[in-house]
Parts: sequence; C-alpha cells; structure tokens
Amino acid sequence: NQTFELDSNPHTRLNILTGEWVLVSPHRTKRPWQGKVEDVTPDNRPEYDPKCYLCPGNGRADGDSNPDYTESFVFNNDFAALLEDTPAGDMNENDLLVANNQRGLCRVISFSPKHNLTLPEMSVEAITAVINVWQNEFNSLAENDWIKYIQIFENKGEIMGCSNPHPHGQIWSQGDIPLEIAKETERQKTYYAIHRRSLLADYLKLELKKNERVVFENDHFVVLVPFWAVWPYEIMIISKRHVNSIKLFSEAEKKSLAEAIKVLTTKYDNLFETSFPYSAGMHQTPVNNGYYPEWHWHMHFYPPLLRSATVKKFMVGYEMLANPQRDITPEFAANRLKEMSTIHYKISKT
Amino acid sequence: NQTFELDSNPHTRLNILTGEWVLVSPHRTKRPWQGKVEDVTPDNRPEYDPKCYLCPGNGRADGDSNPDYTESFVFNNDFAALLEDTPAGDMNENDLLVANNQRGLCRVISFSPKHNLTLPEMSVEAITAVINVWQNEFNSLAENDWIKYIQIFENKGEIMGCSNPHPHGQIWSQGDIPLEIAKETERQKTYYAIHRRSLLADYLKLELKKNERVVFENDHFVVLVPFWAVWPYEIMIISKRHVNSIKLFSEAEKKSLAEAIKVLTTKYDNLFETSFPYSAGMHQTPVNNGYYPEWHWHMHFYPPLLRSATVKKFMVGYEMLANPQRDITPEFAANRLKEMSTIHYKISKT
Ligand SMILES: O=P(O)(O)O[C@H]1O[C@H](CO)[C@@H](O)[C@H](O)[C@H]1O
Ligand SMILES: O=P(O)(O)O[C@H]1O[C@H](CO)[C@@H](O)[C@H](O)[C@H]1O
Repeated sequence: NQTFELDSNPHTRLNILTGEWVLVSPHRTKRPWQGKVEDVTPDNRPEYDPKCYLCPGNGRADGDSNPDYTESFVFNNDFAALLEDTPAGDMNENDLLVANNQRGLCRVISFSPKHNLTLPEMSVEAITAVINVWQNEFNSLAENDWIKYIQIFENKGEIMGCSNPHPHGQIWSQGDIPLEIAKETERQKTYYAIHRRSLLADYLKLELKKNERVVFENDHFVVLVPFWAVWPYEIMIISKRHVNSIKLFSEAEKKSLAEAIKVLTTKYDNLFETSFPYSAGMHQTPVNNGYYPEWHWHMHFYPPLLRSATVKKFMVGYEMLANPQRDITPEFAANRLKEMSTIHYKISKT
Repeated sequence: NQTFELDSNPHTRLNILTGEWVLVSPHRTKRPWQGKVEDVTPDNRPEYDPKCYLCPGNGRADGDSNPDYTESFVFNNDFAALLEDTPAGDMNENDLLVANNQRGLCRVISFSPKHNLTLPEMSVEAITAVINVWQNEFNSLAENDWIKYIQIFENKGEIMGCSNPHPHGQIWSQGDIPLEIAKETERQKTYYAIHRRSLLADYLKLELKKNERVVFENDHFVVLVPFWAVWPYEIMIISKRHVNSIKLFSEAEKKSLAEAIKVLTTKYDNLFETSFPYSAGMHQTPVNNGYYPEWHWHMHFYPPLLRSATVKKFMVGYEMLANPQRDITPEFAANRLKEMSTIHYKISKT
C-alpha cells in the first residue's frame, strides 16, 4: 500500500515522437561502479595543428588543400558512407533477403579555423555563422531532387566516435527516409490529422506550464530534458514557432538558436568540468517528397556520461536486446542542468 | 552503366525480424582511423579473487555470502533495475506525458566458480550446465503469472559495460513486453499468418542453401551472420527445430547449443586474439500472455569490435539520429569467422 511515484519506482515512459517506451529505474543510482572508467582526453590542443586535416591551409585525403578560412568551412567527406554515383539496383529473394541501392552525399563542416575551440567556447556570432552554413547546406542539398532526407549532426568527443578533435559536424543526405525520421513522421502525422496542431507545440506548452524539465528558454527556443529521455542528460531543443525545417528560420531565430546551443553546451561542460561528449543533430521534414505540415523542427542531444567525466551509461545487453533503460530520472537531470552556470568553467576558473 | 553490387555499392538491407533497414557502406573500410583506441583489459586474472562478489564463499552487497558452488550459481541482483514490489500506478496527461509502473525480477548467473574462465574456455559439459540453469530459471520465472517476458543475456568485456570480469550473465524479467520483442513478435506473427510456417525456418532454409553467411552448423543449430547484421561481426544462432522457447529444448539440443556457443566464442576470440567483447542474449516467446506459435527461438550476439582488439564500431551521430550503419559486409564477416580455428588461440599458442 505504497503509492506509485515517478521519482522512486521503476516505470516505463512513452516517447511520443517514436511510440517507443523507455524503462526508468530511479532507485538504481545507488549501484556501485566497478566497471570501465573512461580516459579523459587531454584538453590542451594548440590553436593550429599541422597534422589536422581540418585546420586552414592543411592537405586532405583527396589531395586538396583547405583554404585559409576564417569562419566555418564545408567540403565533401573524403570517406563518405554514401556516394552520389551509386548505380540503381535491388534484390529480393522470397521477401527474406531484401536490399536496395542507396545514393547519398556526405559533407563535413569545420565549425571554426581554431583547432582547440568547441561550440561552448565560441561566441554567439560564431555559432550563428555555423547555423548559417547548416541552413545554406540544407537548402542547396535539397535542390537535388533525388535527395529525400538531410541529416545534420555532430559527434563530439572520442567516446562518441569522433575521429578528429577539431570542432566539426557532418551532413549525410540520402535517397530514402531513415528509420528515426520515418518513426517521428508517423507519430507527428497522426497527431496532426486528429488535432490540426503540431504534436511538439502542444507538448511544449505543457512542459512550459509544468516547468519540471525545462533547462533554458529564450524568445524562440526551449531547451528541455524530454519526459522520455533515454540518455542520462539527453536534451531536446524545440523551436517555439511551428516550422518544419531550418530553411524557414529568420535571422532572429538563428541568433536565438546559437544562444540556446551556447548555453546548453556550456552547462554540459560545467556539469562534470570536462569537455562534455555527445552526439547531436536536427530532425526536420523530409524533402522532395510532398509536403509535411506536421513536422516540427527540433534538435536532439544524446550525451553518454552518467556519473562523472569518466563513468558513462552503457546501452548494452538488456538495452540492445530488449528495451532502452535509464537510471536517474529526467527531472533530476533537468534540475542538475538548470543549476549549472552559463559561464564556462574554464573562464570562471581563470 | 556500372551494375549494382552488394559487395561494393552502398545499399540498405531489410531486417525481416524487425522491419527496420540497415545502411551498408562496403567501400568505407578504407577510411583511416585517428579516433579512439580502446584499452585491452589484461587477461591474467587469478582463478579466485577475494574481492570479487561472484567468487565462491565471498560476501555480497546484500550481506549474504556465496556458497562454495562448483558449477553455476544464481542469485537475485543486489542492484536490480526492476523490483517485484513496485506499487501499481500510471500517469497520462493529454497523451503527452504517459507512464506506467513496471514490476520485474532480475537475476545474476555466475557461469563458473573460476574467476578467470570465459565461455570459450569452458568445456561443452560446463556450458551445458549453464544452459540448464537458463532453462530452469526460464521455467521457474514463468510460474509468476504477472511476468510477461524473460530476457536472458550476457554482457562480456568492460567495453560492453560489464562491471565484473568474473564470467556471468543476467536475467531481467518483467510485467510488460519490451520493445525488441514486440517488433519481432509482430513480424513473425504476420509471416506465420500468411505462410503457416515460421519466418526463421524459411530464412534458415534459404541461408543453408546459399551458404554465404553460415559460420557453423551442427545437428540442432546454425550459427550465421544475418543478412541484415548491424554490428560488424554480429551473429544469430537459430534452432533448426521450430520451438518457441528454451523450455522445449531436449538434452541433445542443449548439448548442441553448448557446442555452438563454444565454437562461436572461440572463433570470436581467435579473430583479433583477444577476449572478444559482446552483448548476447536469447529472444523467445512472451509468457503468461496467450500462445505464440509463430515464435522461433534464437540468440543474438552483438560484438562492437571492427578492425582489431582496440578499434570498435561507434553507433553514434548518424546511427542514433537517423539509421543503423555498417562498414564491412555481412558476407565478409561470415567468411572471416568461418576461416577461424575452433581451437582457442591461448591453447594453440602453448
Ligand atoms: O547490471 P550491470 O552489469 O551492473 O550493468 C550493465 O548491464 C545493464 C543491463 O544491460 C546495463 O543497464 C548497464 O548500463 C550495464 O553497465
Ligand atoms: O565519420 P566519422 O567521424 O569518421 O565517424 C563517426 O561518425 C559516423 C557517423 O555517425 C559513424 O558511422 C562512425 O562510426 C563514427 O566513428
């Protein structure tokens, strides 16, 4: 005859964007950790590294040299997972062995000429310049009518498979709609068909009213830990205006988004006083495939750290075979991030 | 005017068990790696470690001491993610914030009294003893009528979040059907409704005929790299007989499964001459929830290593935000594993 409490009893929460559930085990943080301790990558890089293929003036794998760029710089990925000239073709044996060719274009974006900067250490103006590149790339990639989806993302930190510490992001665009986008399209479409309103707009309204998971808010964006967060300090940035892609952002919105990213990544770094690793990326409407009025632009941040700069959450056995699982509650994570200063620890320490 | 080839062109493949696609980029193995290099955990553990909570006779977190066991040993997880006495309850605000309580029982199984053994180094008889424990636990957990699914799994290696190197596995059982099982149920059910045959039985027949992805076969089991494998050296063990759970395995089948596991894990260790990390687990019918004749027992192995003992595949940015992606083809992986000896490298080196 106890009563059920979200902050102390094991439970599942619904991800309204995918229709999938996450298992939450709030009581499990007491578990001792004798497992893997991650290395902390030393954070004393020079401003310029002659061996880095992203630094201005240096050579790249395809034989080209980078220009002496001063803001951001974009080029085609020299080791792209998707290629434009993939021949057409497919295979189907009894619906048991099924494959399709896949065309695509992959780009790399250096965020800054400086080898040792990361987003939280850049100015709002410099981050706005990166957002301008994202917007331009989105628009120009969408001019290829065979491209159906454009995934803009960043892997930050060695622990997130980032193969070069120079601050950079990637864009993978392709001829089919990838899995996560297909799921989010379906759920948003269903909600929109019933309510004639954006699913995320209604969700945002409720979150702002409750104010239990909101970490930061400015004129155009809300930074929050979603109710169904899987990763310990997972975040969504949601635009207040219901727009279906980055294409539609005004100058004011781009500046607001830059501020939101700077505030969030600074709080992240301050949490464990480390350059906080994550994979982050935008979700938005497919392109060249009809009109998706239900789509509501947002950005996901999936950071792996759980307890400290060296102890991460492992999504392994049970999580891979059965269901995503988390230990701390989303509300606990939101509170911790809310408490964090918006001044970067490296600055406040000098 | 090239023709499309699965072994050289980027393409997608359908996972017939989940309905999801994987992006395959066969040409991408040429990519240089300047990213994270994993530590190799030293493999010189003693047979008995006085500080290990799994070794015979030692104390555990709940105050109990382990018996002086000689084969396998099972106990309730002292830091369980799911608890039996979770009070009933749920929450739903406008279908936007949705949560349910979740009851469960979590067990830990030590595979051997010896702290320094792993499955490939154990005898077929000793592995059969572990399979007997799995079968008994499955049967006895299923006696709780509120339990709907029983997930048997192993996390092996620090890199897979294993918090104690003593060879052990886990069982998480719970009151709802987890995500991966719900997906596999749906696809198997649909196929069975149309064909009146098991999806995996038909798939197995085709794979045995083609013989491009089969790594090992004995009287009762086939070890293969599935056509839609996501992880570089991902494996499925499929039972030749269409049974829906481990409950139905005969003595002969349990011995055959032990042999299949020994052969596979030995080949895994030989591949990069390291104790090969993975998460592995069985998928089988839900329990206490009606009859699932379509379900076909199988076991998945998800190992992260890609190029060597120290370079793994990262499922990060694009993979988390958009779609699973792999570099080497499943056929390449199957060939490599087929070539590997069934004598463990530690033995053939002495
Ligand atoms: O239960 P353990 O071994 O402490 O923990 C390990 O396996 C669990 C089940 O896959 C995961 O939730 C944990 O993240 C992982 O570290
Ligand atoms: O493209 P990179 O930075 O070399 O590689 C990184 O990001 C890719 C896209 O998320 C992943 O497929 C790789 O596993 C990861 O190491």
